[in-house]
Amino acid sequence: MKDYERLPLIPIKSAKGVYLEDFEGKKYIDAISSWWVNLFGHQHPYIKQMIKEQLDCLEHVIFAGFTHEPIIRLSERLVEITPSNLTKCFYADNGSSAIEVAIKMSFHYNKNRGLTKPYFVSLENSYHGETIGALSLGDLGIYKESYEELLIRSIKSEVPRDQSEEEAKRAADALKRLFEERSEEISAFVVEPLVQCAGGMHMYSPLFLKLASELCKEFDIHFIADEIAVGFGRTGSMFACEQADVKPNFMALSKGITGGYLPLSVVLLEDKMYDSFYCDYNLNKSFLHSHSYTGNALACAAANAVLDIFENEDILEKNRKKSAYINKKLQKFLELKNVKSVRQTGMIAAITLRGYPTQERIGLRVYEYGLKKGVLLRPLGNVIYFMPPYIITEEEIDKMMDTAYEAISLLPPVEPNLET
Amino acid sequence: MKDYERLPLIPIKSAKGVYLEDFEGKKYIDAISSWWVNLFGHQHPYIKQMIKEQLDCLEHVIFAGFTHEPIIRLSERLVEITPSNLTKCFYADNGSSAIEVAIKMSFHYNKNRGLTKPYFVSLENSYHGETIGALSLGDLGIYKESYEELLIRSIKSEVPRDQSEEEAKRAADALKRLFEERSEEISAFVVEPLVQCAGGMHMYSPLFLKLASELCKEFDIHFIADEIAVGFGRTGSMFACEQADVKPNFMALSKGITGGYLPLSVVLLEDKMYDSFYCDYNLNKSFLHSHSYTGNALACAAANAVLDIFENEDILEKNRKKSAYINKKLQKFLELKNVKSVRQTGMIAAITLRGYPTQERIGLRVYEYGLKKGVLLRPLGNVIYFMPPYIITEEEIDKMMDTAYEAISLLPPVEPNLET
Repeated sequence: MKDYERLPLIPIKSAKGVYLEDFEGKKYIDAISSWWVNLFGHQHPYIKQMIKEQLDCLEHVIFAGFTHEPIIRLSERLVEITPSNLTKCFYADNGSSAIEVAIKMSFHYNKNRGLTKPYFVSLENSYHGETIGALSLGDLGIYKESYEELLIRSIKSEVPRDQSEEEAKRAADALKRLFEERSEEISAFVVEPLVQCAGGMHMYSPLFLKLASELCKEFDIHFIADEIAVGFGRTGSMFACEQADVKPNFMALSKGITGGYLPLSVVLLEDKMYDSFYCDYNLNKSFLHSHSYTGNALACAAANAVLDIFENEDILEKNRKKSAYINKKLQKFLELKNVKSVRQTGMIAAITLRGYPTQERIGLRVYEYGLKKGVLLRPLGNVIYFMPPYIITEEEIDKMMDTAYEAISLLPPVEPNLET
Repeated sequence: MKDYERLPLIPIKSAKGVYLEDFEGKKYIDAISSWWVNLFGHQHPYIKQMIKEQLDCLEHVIFAGFTHEPIIRLSERLVEITPSNLTKCFYADNGSSAIEVAIKMSFHYNKNRGLTKPYFVSLENSYHGETIGALSLGDLGIYKESYEELLIRSIKSEVPRDQSEEEAKRAADALKRLFEERSEEISAFVVEPLVQCAGGMHMYSPLFLKLASELCKEFDIHFIADEIAVGFGRTGSMFACEQADVKPNFMALSKGITGGYLPLSVVLLEDKMYDSFYCDYNLNKSFLHSHSYTGNALACAAANAVLDIFENEDILEKNRKKSAYINKKLQKFLELKNVKSVRQTGMIAAITLRGYPTQERIGLRVYEYGLKKGVLLRPLGNVIYFMPPYIITEEEIDKMMDTAYEAISLLPPVEPNLET
C-alpha cells in the first residue's frame, strides 16, 4: 500500500477487449489478463449475454440436496475435456479453496483405507494459494515466511532449473530419493504443470511431469495437478498435463474457467476417491467441504460460455499462430545487455533481467513505464512477462512487447558483478 | 451422496422471490435462504439490474495496482455501517477465506510487534469454515475429525449453554481462566456472535460477547467477530455485535453481503493493524493475501444493490414485525411432545426435537415431508430451523411453519428414555 504514495492506484472505469480504461479516458492493454484470469477479453458479448440470461432464470440455489442445469452441463463437459481418468467434479470459489479440497480429499482417502499420511510434497519455488493449507505447500517466502508456526506439514523437492531434459531427470531423481525415504508419510505430490507462474514464470520440461507421475504411481502417492493458472489453453494445450500425457489423480482448475468474469474453482477426481467417500452417512467416511456459494449458477453460466467459445472458435489453433508471433519478437530481447534469458510456453512469454540488486525492484520501473505508455505489465521481481487475453491482435502484441522492449532498454546500465 | 439413492437431488430450473421451482413446475419455499445467503428473494429485479449494468461496463479487473468505483463505494459504506473502530476492508471470495485472512492478519500483526502467538481460541460447538485454517477453529466433529493431523493450533473454550445471563457469565469465567493461563500464546478469540448457526442454531446472550470482548482487551488478545452467517440484519440488528455494543478488532462478512447472488467476502479491520503492515516493501512486513478474483466488480455491484435496499426500504423495522409474527407461531411448537425447546434471534428461529437416537437422523424425515409439501427445510441433526429471505410474507410464514409443525407431529412417538 505504501508504494501507492508514489504510484497511485489507478481506478478503472470500464474495460473492453484487451483494454482497460481509466476515468481520464486513458487506455491500457491488459497484458497479464488481470492476473491470468481473462481469456477472451473484457466485456465479451457472448459471455455477458449468457450471464444475463442466467440472471433472468436462477442466480443461485443451495448446492446440497439441490442442483441445476448449468452445473450439470459444466461438469459433464469438464469431465469430457480433462484426462480420461477424471470423472467427478467438486466445486469451490477460488483456487486456494480448490487446493484445500484436493489435499483434504487425498488425506481423507488415505484415512479411509487405514493410512495416516500427513505430509505433502511440492516443488521449490512453487505457489499454490494463500489459505493456510494451500500456503503450506508453496515455497515463496514473501507469502509464507511470516506464518511458519501456522503451516501444515509439507516437504519441498527440487524443481528442474530450466526446460532441458537433463534438469527434468535430475529433479525426478531427487523426488525419487525423497519418496524412497518418506513415501509412507506422504499423501500427495502437488505441482504446477510446466510453468510455476507466481514463481517468476519459471518453466520446465514435460518430461519432469511424466517422470514424477510414474514415481507417484510407484510409491502410492497422489499426483495433484494445480492447473489453476495454466489450464484452459494457456500453455498451448487445453490443459498443461496433456503435453506430458500424464493422468493426475486430482486436477484443480480456476482463473480462466469463467473467462475472467466470476470466482469459481473445481477439483476433478477419480472414481476410486469418490467411491471411498460414498457410504452410509452414519459411517462418517463421507467427504464434507462446503462454501455457501458452491455451485453458483451465474459462475457456471460464464464457464459454459467459455467452453462454447473454445468449441466454436478453434482457439487453440489460433493461439498457436499468436504464440509463434510472440516467440519471434521475444528473441529480440536477447540483444539487450540487461536481459539474462527469455522463455515461452504457449501464451506465456517471460524475460529475466540481470544486473540489478533485488532491493532496487527494477521491475517496478518497467511497470511504471508500461503504465505511462498504456500497457499493464506487472513484473514478478526481475521477470517481465506477457500473458495476454487470447483475443489479442498482432498489432496489440507489437504495442505490448515493443513497450516492454523500450522500458527495458531505458533501464540504468547493469551492474557487471550481478549475474541475477 | 449415498442419501440421494433414496432421495434424489432436485434440479432447480428457476427461482423467484422465496420460491424455487423444479423441472416439473413444483415450487418450494426457500425457508433456509439457500444456506443463509439470500436476503431479498431470488431474481430480485433491482439486484439483477445492477449486476447487468455492471456487466455492460466492467466485469473484473486485477485488484493490485488498480481499483474501481463499485469497490470504493462498497468499502466506504461497509466502514460506515460497521462498528466505528473498523476502518479498512480486505476482500476475498468466501467465508473460509475471510477467516483465513483474519487469523493470518492477527498472527502477522503480533509478529510485526515481536510476539509469536500461534494459538487461536474459539468456542465449543463453533463452525468457521472448511479450509485448513478455518477448519482448525471449528468444533464440529463431522467436518474436522478426519483431518486432525493437518490442523493448526486452536483451543476450545466453553460456550454458554443457553440464552441466560448466568450461562454467559459462566462461559466468560471459563474464558478468563484460559486467558489467565495461556494468553501469551494466543493471538485471537474467534466467535460467531449470538448464534452458532452450523452448530444447530445454538443461541446465547449478548452479555457473553460483552464480557468476552472485555477479557480480550484485558489480555491483549484480538476479538474476531465471524458475522458471516449472522451479519446483514439476520439477528435483528444490522450486525449481531451491535446488540452487545462490542467493537471487534476484526469482523468477517460474506453470505448475505451480495444478497445470495455471488461469492464475496470481506474482513474489516482497524487502523492499527493496517498501519503495522504499512511500510516499505523491502521491509517485508506487509500483509500479502490475494485471490485471483479479489474485488470482483460484479459481486461488488450486487453488494451495493443490497445496501441500497437496506437504506431505501427500512428492512430492519419490517423484519422486527416478521420476527414477532414468527415468534408467536414458534411457541405453538412447545405443545408437541417431541419438541424439547424453541428459540429465536431476529430472523432465525429454531426448534430442538427430543426422543430420537442420532443415528435415526430424524431431521431427514422432516426434510422429506417439507419437500413433499413444497417447503425447503434443511434440519441440522435434530434441530429444525427457519431462516427465510426477508421478503417472506405472513402467508408464506404460515405455510413454512405449519408444514414444519405437521412434519414434527407426524414423527414416530418419542423414546421416553432419550432426553436429546
